[in-house]
Formats: sequence, C-alpha cells, structure tokens
Amino acid sequence: MSTPESRLPVPARLAALADALHAGDDAQVALLLDSLHPAEIAGFLESLPGEERQGLWDALPRERHAGVLAELSQGVRQRVVADLPLDDLLAITERLDPDDVADLVGSLPDVRVEELLGALDSQDRARLEQMLAYPEDTAGGLMTPDAVTVRPDITVEVVLRYLRRRGRMPDATDKLVVVDRRDRFLGEVTLTALLTAHPEQTIAEIVNRDAPALAVSTPASEVAQTFARRDLISAPVVDAHGRFLGRITIDDVVDVLRAQAEESFLGMAGVRTDEDLFAPVLHSARQRAVWLGVNLVTALLAAAVIRAFEGSIERMVALAALMPVIASMGGNAGNQTVALVIRALALGQVSRRNAWTLLRREVQVGLLNSAFWGSAIALVAGVWFGAAALGFTAGLAMVINLITAAAAGFLIPVTLRRLGVDPAVASTVFLTTATDVVGFLAFLGLATLILL
Amino acid sequence: MSTPESRLPVPARLAALADALHAGDDAQVALLLDSLHPAEIAGFLESLPGEERQGLWDALPRERHAGVLAELSQGVRQRVVADLPLDDLLAITERLDPDDVADLVGSLPDVRVEELLGALDSQDRARLEQMLAYPEDTAGGLMTPDAVTVRPDITVEVVLRYLRRRGRMPDATDKLVVVDRRDRFLGEVTLTALLTAHPEQTIAEIVNRDAPALAVSTPASEVAQTFARRDLISAPVVDAHGRFLGRITIDDVVDVLRAQAEESFLGMAGVRTDEDLFAPVLHSARQRAVWLGVNLVTALLAAAVIRAFEGSIERMVALAALMPVIASMGGNAGNQTVALVIRALALGQVSRRNAWTLLRREVQVGLLNSAFWGSAIALVAGVWFGAAALGFTAGLAMVINLITAAAAGFLIPVTLRRLGVDPAVASTVFLTTATDVVGFLAFLGLATLILL
Repeated sequence: MSTPESRLPVPARLAALADALHAGDDAQVALLLDSLHPAEIAGFLESLPGEERQGLWDALPRERHAGVLAELSQGVRQRVVADLPLDDLLAITERLDPDDVADLVGSLPDVRVEELLGALDSQDRARLEQMLAYPEDTAGGLMTPDAVTVRPDITVEVVLRYLRRRGRMPDATDKLVVVDRRDRFLGEVTLTALLTAHPEQTIAEIVNRDAPALAVSTPASEVAQTFARRDLISAPVVDAHGRFLGRITIDDVVDVLRAQAEESFLGMAGVRTDEDLFAPVLHSARQRAVWLGVNLVTALLAAAVIRAFEGSIERMVALAALMPVIASMGGNAGNQTVALVIRALALGQVSRRNAWTLLRREVQVGLLNSAFWGSAIALVAGVWFGAAALGFTAGLAMVINLITAAAAGFLIPVTLRRLGVDPAVASTVFLTTATDVVGFLAFLGLATLILL
Repeated sequence: MSTPESRLPVPARLAALADALHAGDDAQVALLLDSLHPAEIAGFLESLPGEERQGLWDALPRERHAGVLAELSQGVRQRVVADLPLDDLLAITERLDPDDVADLVGSLPDVRVEELLGALDSQDRARLEQMLAYPEDTAGGLMTPDAVTVRPDITVEVVLRYLRRRGRMPDATDKLVVVDRRDRFLGEVTLTALLTAHPEQTIAEIVNRDAPALAVSTPASEVAQTFARRDLISAPVVDAHGRFLGRITIDDVVDVLRAQAEESFLGMAGVRTDEDLFAPVLHSARQRAVWLGVNLVTALLAAAVIRAFEGSIERMVALAALMPVIASMGGNAGNQTVALVIRALALGQVSRRNAWTLLRREVQVGLLNSAFWGSAIALVAGVWFGAAALGFTAGLAMVINLITAAAAGFLIPVTLRRLGVDPAVASTVFLTTATDVVGFLAFLGLATLILL
C-alpha cells in the first residue's frame, strides 16, 4: 500500500477522489479507493448526492462492499441495500462478522429478509436467526459470538501452543474467556496476564474471577456506561444460567455512544437520526413536518392567549412589541435548565433524594437572572417607550416567566423520563408552550391590571 | 470482594450508600465504598449537593482519592482539588498515570500548580512539565508515555521472555511498539500476532508497518475520529522527526467523544460544559446570564421591527396574535436544518463541492413544508378571525420565513465554522434573530400592503 496516493493525508485523498469521480477517471478512482479505509469511504459516500453515490458504489470492488456497508449510517445503508441483488447481498453477509450481519438485516425491508433467509443454508440461517432474536439495543444485539474460550485446568503453556496452532484471533481480543465444561462463564484472562505468566501456571491461577459479565438483556445504554466507566475493551455476555454467549467489543460501544449523542442532539431540534443529508426531499420534508405541526399547535395556543387580550393591546400598542421579548427570554432560560437536566438524567444523577434540591437550585438561579435581566428590560422599555410603569410591568413579567421557565425546565424532562418518553425529543415543545403561554399571560395580564 | 454488598446491582448499592450516608452509618458507608468502582463513586459524588459531597470525600480512604479524582468531570474536580492540602495532592499525583496527572494539574489554579511543581523532585517535575507542554486538546495532551517498546531484530521468543521478566504491562496494551535505536517509530506488533507467531520469527517478520502514527499536534477531535473510524484500541504518537513519544488509548478517546457530544448538546442550549449540577447558585447564574443577555439584545431587535409597525397593529389588532406564530415556526424549522448541518460539519461531510447542493436541498424541504403549513395557517387564521385575506397574508409570510429559515439554517453554521467559531454554541442565536426579524417583517409588512 505504498502508492503515492496512500502517502497523502486522508482529506486530500478524498478531495482527489471527488475530482477523479467528477472527471470520470476510473483508474484514478480505483487507485484512490484502494488507499482508503472502509470507514473513510463510507463517510465520503454519505456526503455525496444520490446519483454520484450510486456511481461510487458501482466503482467499488465487490469484495469491499461488505466492509463499507458495515460502516454506513443507518439511513444511508437502508437506501443502499434496498435495491441490492440477492447474490450481492449473500456475498456481503459471508464477509461480515455475525453482529454486523444482524445489523445489516435490521436495515432490510421484511420481504427482503425472508428472501435472504431462504437463500442461506440451514446452519447459517439458524445462526442468523439466533442473532436476530436479540433486540438490537441490548447486550445480545451488540455481541458477537466470536471468542477464544479456554478451560481453567490447563496450563499457560498449553494455551500458548493452542493459540499458535489456531492462528488469527477475533478482532479486539484483549482477553480469553474462561468457561467450564457446560460453557458457564468463570472469568477472564487478559492477554497481558497470559504473556507475563509462568508457562507452568494453570489458567485457574491467573483467571480474574471478578470480571463483570453482562446479562444478555442489558440495555445498550447501560452497556455503554459500563464500558466508559470501567475502561473496558471487551466484555462477556451471559444468559440467565450464566452460560457464555458472546463478547461485546469497544468499537461497537463507541458506535452506541455516538448514536446516542446524535439522537439527543438532533432530537432536541426535532430531527430524526436516520435522516440522511441527501435523502429525497419529499422524504425529509415529511419527516420534519410532524415536528413543525406540533409546534404550530402550541404556537396557536399562545396566539389564543394574546387574542384574549386584544382589547388591552388596542389601547396600548407598545405591549405588542414587548410581549415576544418576555416569552423568548423564558424559552431561552428554560432551555438551559432542560439541557442540564437531560444530561444529568442520562448520567443517572437525578434521584428521588436530590430532585427537590435540584429544583430549588434551578429556581434560585432563575430568580437571580430574572432579577438582573428583569431590571434591564424595565430600564430599556421604560426609556424606549418613555413610560416607567410599562417598564416595571415588563420587568415583573420577566421575573415570573424566568422562574416558571426554571421550574418547567426541571419538571418537564423528569416527568417525561418517568413516563418512558425520551426527554431529549419532547422537552422543548412542552417547555416553549409553557414559557410562551405564561410569558404572554403574565405580561398582558399585569399590563391590564396595572396600566389600563 | 464477595461481601453481600458487592452482589447487589450498582444502582441498588448507590441507593444504599445514600441511605448510609444520611444515617451516618460509617461502617456501612466504608463497606459500600469498598464494593464500588472509582468511576461509580465519581458519578455518585457529582450527584450530591456541596456539604454531602465533602462528607463522602472525607469518608473515602485516602488511597482511593486519586482514582476517583481521575474520573470526576472537570467542573466538579476543580471544586474538589481547589482546597486539597499539598500533601494529599502529592500523594494523589504519585498514584495516577502521567496523562491523568497532567489533566489534574490542568484543573488547579496557577498558584497551586507552582506550589505542586516546587514540591516535586527534579525528575518528576521535568516529566510533568514535559506533559504539560502539550495542549490538552491535542494528541500530545491525550497520550501517556507508558508503552512497551521492542526492536525489530529480536525474536518472538526473546520478547516473550522479556515480557515475563517485566511483569505487568500498561493498561490497554494491545500492541507492542517497534522502534529503532534512535526511538524512531517503525510499526506495531499486536499481542494476538505475538501469541500466534512462531517463537523463532523475528519482530521484523510480524511487524505491521502500515500502522498509522499520529502527529503530536493532531487535534483531539481528529484523534477521536481516527479511532472511531479505524476501530483502534491504542495508537502511537510521534514527533516531527518520527520519534515515538507515547500512546493514546481508547478509554481517553471515549472521554473525548463524550465531552464533545456534551459540548454540542449543552452549547446549543447556551450552557457551558463545566457547569456542575450543584455549583454555587451565583456561579451558575453568572455563567448563564451572558447567553440570556445576548438573546435579550436579539429579542429587542425583533421588538424594534414590531414597533415600526405599531400603526398597522393599532388598526388591526389580530396581527399581534398571529405574528409570534410566524416567527416561532421559522425558528423551529431553521433549527432542524442547523442541527443537521452541525452534525454534517462535525463529520467532515460539508465541502465546497456539495455545499450548493445541500443548500438547494434544504430550501426545497423548506418550500414543501412551508407550502403545507402555510396553507394550514391560512385556513386556521382565516376561519378563526373570519378574514380570508388575513389568513392568506399569514400563509404567505410563513412561506417566506420558512425558506429564509432553511437558507439561514445552512449558511449560519457553515459561516461560523469558516470563521473558527463553534457552530454548536453560536448558531441558534443568529438563527432566531434572522427568523424573528424576517418573520415579523414579512407578516406585518405584507399585512400593511395587502390588508390596510
């Protein structure tokens, strides 16, 4: 792999690849593709619009399809595999690790899954069906059955001889799994322990029996947290009887962590994670429309509040200019609390015991900031409209709305979580409804009482 | 470690710990702490308010302080180490890996760093100063000098004997680093290759010379991307002359990935990542006030637009009720685009070549959704206020604002990135300014032209 191309840094090679594709220089495309890692090709593929994407896919040697497919994000992968001929699909499944095959099958429409299962021989089918039996977002869905297992009663020397005869080990093998005759999990031996042990020692003497084994039904988010907290590279998965089923490796956990982070980030803005940069426009529009519709309903709710005060606005039109200021400050302050609480919930740091303290603390922060910015708006509005009483009303409404925002910013995500709804996706809609309605109500209501 | 406590699941043990702390049952606290991993204790510590946090810290055996400190988030760590006696600090630095010591020192106020450096012996000081010389967010800042290095000309058998004599290897050692006489990096030998090789083979025969080495100045985000894309467990770091300096391990990369995700997530809501759940109220209020102030200024800008149309609102007060609907729909739609673009920028998927296609695509999505929801608001407003022309005006303003939102949602993060500003933190302020100003202007302007 020491062509001149492979010596360029990756971004330069990707730029050259884009040029070569554009110019239709097939030889150069092939040379550049050869120098790139499957994950780099996958990332590049995602940045291409539809037609060019197909062109690059076709230019890719067939034996590399499997590797690239395994690295594609879900949305793009679905589109790529949807039209793949059965032969190609079979060839691809043969090259992938069992857990990656299961992921791939998860991206296929049901009809195509049936078709694929029908084309496999009975042994492969049984194996794949077993993998598919575990939900994707559990330890079972993340694990691969590939592992090196040893018995406790043999010596290090025998293990070393066995490994040499065996040859290549599965990716990310940092430990051997120690099991008894009935495949029950006993513990682990790290490769470093194996390498530093005396050849005559038995595995039983160097096994780590405290090594944590994950139950097959453990949720993926909990698996990720265990890995991150304990600095694991791989972890064994066991069934309810303690039998060893497979291993989870850090690379799959890194993918889980990235997917979770994306979900929260995009979810808060009302975008689904499987939305692809170049998905058909109609598809994207439809996916995003729902969120906009929900927001329209809540905005109309706020509009109804304003309409109830039409008489007041008619008599003092300055109210119309200031009322969005009060509402939007509440939304911004509440969002700060929401983001902090969602992070704390994800880290498991909110409990019955500290909830009250947390709520009180957020309200105190809201009180301080509302006192400060409430005074500011009172001053600005008073001077701008030449009416001290109007300024005072705006300031007071700001205090009410920022305290509401702090309380709602805490209570909404906590309640959603308790109801089993993802707080990252749904919190902001409820929050802005609360801060808009309370903001308009407080300001227009106070103005009606005080000023008119 | 097979006390009854260690058999409970971790959350149950943490709940029991909270109870024991509350009840002042020191023996039970000690027993439970003993059964927990440093990272679990750190997470629990972060969920405690100030006074209780100190109590738990004091209950922790001194020899465990170092481990827990290394796992604390930055904000909490700063508060914990700020008042630590010098003796404790020295004892802690002795127990940590060099990269963790460097992180810890980064959390100390400057005066205390001087104090600590002065108390170290010259060798330790030189080593620490060298680690501190690399910026925290680069490969140099992430690496640890601990590594097992071997020469290419020796045999596998000699290496195996050397490793046995050496004993324990550094954490997350999955490969040996192959260097020449002048410490220049030549390649890597995985432990699995070592274990499956023939004892008489030389290292030169089994070394992987294509193994990627990271330049010491590589930004942390690029390091993380390389790890994630290439499924690495560790990677060597070299200086400009190709000399081996140290290794980066996956556990530190996982921390980088989590920190990045938090930064985007919290940043979009205007919260800084070092804000701790139980930081002093005044501290939190001050940190969040800046963001609110920026938003107040932009909200006043929007208010000025409304004020310019006071005459129109006076003549048709229904405008006041509908105008926030147009503005807020623009903000929501624009935020969807912003989130997608920020993700694409982070993945390096936006280039000069596809920027125009991306922008056009977002505007098309905006056009479709604005046609749909614009018609909806036209209908609702027309019926609600019994005025078809008012409904039509609202619908048209919605179309204008949603298309503006799509374009701004693309252009703002792309421009910020080009200016070297983190788009996750600053995009939403500029976006809502644009959608508020354009929303009010379009609706009130059109209404003045069409209706009055």
